[in-house]
Amino acid sequence: MKILRIDMGQLSYQEEEVPAELLALGGRALTSKLVHDEVPATCHPLGPYNKLIMANGVLTGSLVSSAERSSIGGKSPLTGGIKESNAGGIAGLKMGRLGYRAIIFEGIRDDFYTVYINKDGVRFERADLLLGKRISEATNILYQTYGKEIGFYLIGISGEFKMNTAAIANPDKDGSPTRFCGRGGLGAVAGSKGIKAVVLDDAGVERNRPKDPERFKESMKMYTTWLRETPGTAKVFPELGTAGLVKTTNKLGALPTRNFSTGSFEHYEAISGETLRETILERGGEGTATHACMPGCLIRCSNIYPDEEGKTVTSPIEYENIGLLGSNLGIGNLDQIAELNRLCNELAVDTIEIGAALGVAMDAGVISFGDVEGAKSILLDLEAGKPLGRIIGGGAALVGKIYGIRRVPVVKGQSMPAYDPRGIKGLGVTYATSPQGADHTAGQTIRAQVDHHSPEGQVEASRQAQEVNAIYDGLGLCYFSASAVAGRFEVMAQLVSGYIGMDITAEDIKNMGRLTLKWEHQFNRKAGFTKADDRLPEHFYIEENPANGQVFDVNQEELETIGAEGEYAR
Amino acid sequence: MKILRIDMGQLSYQEEEVPAELLALGGRALTSKLVHDEVPATCHPLGPYNKLIMANGVLTGSLVSSAERSSIGGKSPLTGGIKESNAGGIAGLKMGRLGYRAIIFEGIRDDFYTVYINKDGVRFERADLLLGKRISEATNILYQTYGKEIGFYLIGISGEFKMNTAAIANPDKDGSPTRFCGRGGLGAVAGSKGIKAVVLDDAGVERNRPKDPERFKESMKMYTTWLRETPGTAKVFPELGTAGLVKTTNKLGALPTRNFSTGSFEHYEAISGETLRETILERGGEGTATHACMPGCLIRCSNIYPDEEGKTVTSPIEYENIGLLGSNLGIGNLDQIAELNRLCNELAVDTIEIGAALGVAMDAGVISFGDVEGAKSILLDLEAGKPLGRIIGGGAALVGKIYGIRRVPVVKGQSMPAYDPRGIKGLGVTYATSPQGADHTAGQTIRAQVDHHSPEGQVEASRQAQEVNAIYDGLGLCYFSASAVAGRFEVMAQLVSGYIGMDITAEDIKNMGRLTLKWEHQFNRKAGFTKADDRLPEHFYIEENPANGQVFDVNQEELETIGAEGEYAR
Repeated sequence: MKILRIDMGQLSYQEEEVPAELLALGGRALTSKLVHDEVPATCHPLGPYNKLIMANGVLTGSLVSSAERSSIGGKSPLTGGIKESNAGGIAGLKMGRLGYRAIIFEGIRDDFYTVYINKDGVRFERADLLLGKRISEATNILYQTYGKEIGFYLIGISGEFKMNTAAIANPDKDGSPTRFCGRGGLGAVAGSKGIKAVVLDDAGVERNRPKDPERFKESMKMYTTWLRETPGTAKVFPELGTAGLVKTTNKLGALPTRNFSTGSFEHYEAISGETLRETILERGGEGTATHACMPGCLIRCSNIYPDEEGKTVTSPIEYENIGLLGSNLGIGNLDQIAELNRLCNELAVDTIEIGAALGVAMDAGVISFGDVEGAKSILLDLEAGKPLGRIIGGGAALVGKIYGIRRVPVVKGQSMPAYDPRGIKGLGVTYATSPQGADHTAGQTIRAQVDHHSPEGQVEASRQAQEVNAIYDGLGLCYFSASAVAGRFEVMAQLVSGYIGMDITAEDIKNMGRLTLKWEHQFNRKAGFTKADDRLPEHFYIEENPANGQVFDVNQEELETIGAEGEYAR
Repeated sequence: MKILRIDMGQLSYQEEEVPAELLALGGRALTSKLVHDEVPATCHPLGPYNKLIMANGVLTGSLVSSAERSSIGGKSPLTGGIKESNAGGIAGLKMGRLGYRAIIFEGIRDDFYTVYINKDGVRFERADLLLGKRISEATNILYQTYGKEIGFYLIGISGEFKMNTAAIANPDKDGSPTRFCGRGGLGAVAGSKGIKAVVLDDAGVERNRPKDPERFKESMKMYTTWLRETPGTAKVFPELGTAGLVKTTNKLGALPTRNFSTGSFEHYEAISGETLRETILERGGEGTATHACMPGCLIRCSNIYPDEEGKTVTSPIEYENIGLLGSNLGIGNLDQIAELNRLCNELAVDTIEIGAALGVAMDAGVISFGDVEGAKSILLDLEAGKPLGRIIGGGAALVGKIYGIRRVPVVKGQSMPAYDPRGIKGLGVTYATSPQGADHTAGQTIRAQVDHHSPEGQVEASRQAQEVNAIYDGLGLCYFSASAVAGRFEVMAQLVSGYIGMDITAEDIKNMGRLTLKWEHQFNRKAGFTKADDRLPEHFYIEENPANGQVFDVNQEELETIGAEGEYAR
């Protein structure tokens, strides 16, 4: 495997062999290692010293179910710290087929290019035709220009504007550009480098095959059996998708409602996973209640949401979208959530950050809670680059500063996903301590065997989850396989060993998770983070969540042991 | 002397004796000591744990020339660190006459009050009549309500909106509300506490008198003689005011021009101190080229700028306003600068931060450089709370984030005053290392005996200036007396000893400066600042200032010895 290094300032490139010590790293482990090694921690995120790094997982291309996730990393304009954001879809798969484990973008420029990559190398083509277009239209232009078989990464108008909420889209297995590396504003970093699109054309290239097929096949069989036999991966996710969580979090008082002012929502049944499934099945047409974003995924947690005539509105409606664009805005209607979700996807903005930003704006009285037309109008302002749209496009923390609001659900500048940390306290620990800022995928504790309302045991639950999540992110594995695969690191090691043809042990796999956290915390320390950053917003400590009577009361000193100055930072 | 402690949440108050160890502290030394001791460093600046502290200088009320400055301190919503901002005027004098060395405001509330303080105590009166009014109109209402003899602190619409640029006004010796504690958004902290105005009515109270008149008189005489005999204080400042600097900085390549993209301005003569003086003298009427903001000030650096009919437009036009609202915006016309200055004063916003914010917005293409009508329109948007006005009201750093601009002249979130750090490198060191963020008054090196373009000697120059400035800020002395008084700490010690009736040595005076920096850096360390924050924006290191061919090239390790983790932080 190679690393492709592209200088956007010079519009030039070179290929490098992956150094031996990086050969068993992929995804987040690799982007974070490279950011740690190559990016000066104090650099401006939109300046010439930042890099944008795309990497596929170690198992990407292996046809292991749910293993095609790819990661994008760099210094985040949203948090000021290290950032990795990953998504399903097919871009990572195509990158791997072209022989690249990672692509490193360097330099900055003011105009925009499509970076076209195929087996013959790299071409830089002016992207003028794509500029200002919505994601669906830009995707059509890419397909018309380069054919339907390509993979790609694509930024939206938000990335052209270098907004903190700018995401990077890539297509799902059916070519629909609905998988987003959403968090941390990496679309703005792409924008600063003049990268409108990266086209990955694997025509004429063989698929990646295991280096040690026997060893691989055996462990693959075991892995697949677990996925098929575990209720979560075999039934719950396929049927309800992530939206199945709505009832659970609402009961825990963890469903963010009206700018996280409470944790349960009076209309939660109207936006639950069950209602979502029923609505999709009833309407039929192009809708589907279960859909795979990656080829060969057995879990198929995604969906396509249709309108009353059965035409596609958006894909997918996930739990995070329901929480942030629904209950958090006082919106209890799936069609309204779908419409906001669709618009966010068209503009390629992080639905979590935008939902949180709109929630703060509603709390400030800019528009009212529940005002879906007002929210749509703001998103159109964002598309037009108008001031109110720019404010929301800056993310929740900036909205709070602009409007002088102190109840802003962010950590390290990044907005919380759809779990009130007073309802699932282990996630509060993850929010406070993760080098990524508030992020459920950096250490999801919702299935940890703890009392979610107790302050006890949450730091350990978060620590374990942060390490395990980092492992999944490095392998390219979707975390939704975790309920089946959990901590079976021995089988992961066998899969990796068989696929890449090296002897990888379970301990190596576990180390990858720990090292990822180490590289990330060490970068952040140099960037200026301290234990003062390991905190939730003040009001979560002193204002009870009315849904469950809880404040966030995990011991701060214990929490700091895994934070910015904790065990990983040393 | 007493400390008055006011709980704005409860609308209650109590008086405390000044503890013995604080008796010889005033102004910034006292606010920073109290913030260090009483404010949790990680608290939200607009939340219940922040405090707003007003303190007059040790010499305030003594009738020593230029010694009536008062300080306001707290945790800054702009920088996230400790903040002290001081101004001339008469509020501190009145506070001292009422027997208070400091007033500490605690708690928060959503409605607004005028806090009326006289010899009988404190009254809380609803401020509804003042809300939304411009500073001049609100001032008239205060005078109508409480009589013309009061002093006061007053926030504008910007403070009601809790904007990062919100300043706090207080009247000059003629009652004109033109002296601003401008930096760091302390007007927003006042706003968060529901403080619209603090009225200081000293009717029926004796003036403060020296405790040891003989000792005081002797040193006072010496001090006054120096002021009268030094060219800077006797002639340059009275004649040209601070605007006399324009020619100097333009020549050094330090006059910020078009968002700090260069350091000299083709129209500098049209906005120089000389032109300012001539214009005022020619027009006559209400204008005056030399004016004292504090009773008894011999330096009289202020002015009143008249229009062509001789009617007052604004007061004062200072060097910082010319640099930030003039050359930095590509505006080379004093009438236009005066008009922007007037509007900023009416809205009670920091002219430095607003000028820098408009400069970044112009660089982003929101309006063009030189577009004074566009700038006025944005200030009216600010007054109306419209989105673009909110963005500018958030300060330069936020404008940069909102518009994805990387050339933003801020340090620790606070915009640079009107000196390009590639033109006066000692000020660059002060910007990078001061606990206050970019701030010339925290360590002015323009008169240091160094080659301003050399990287050598700048750290020592800045260190000395930072200590001396902190001393002046603690005494309530205007730094413009420094060219006459300089490091004559023995006489300062005599003045203080005679005034407060304690034996204060020159070493005590010097210690006050060092301790102030210590308290401030220690607070900031707890708030999360590190040496990663001791940096100028990246482009100042890599892009030459076209006016002088310089980049900022002071040795970073040497610079860090006086920064966030340096000698004062320990």
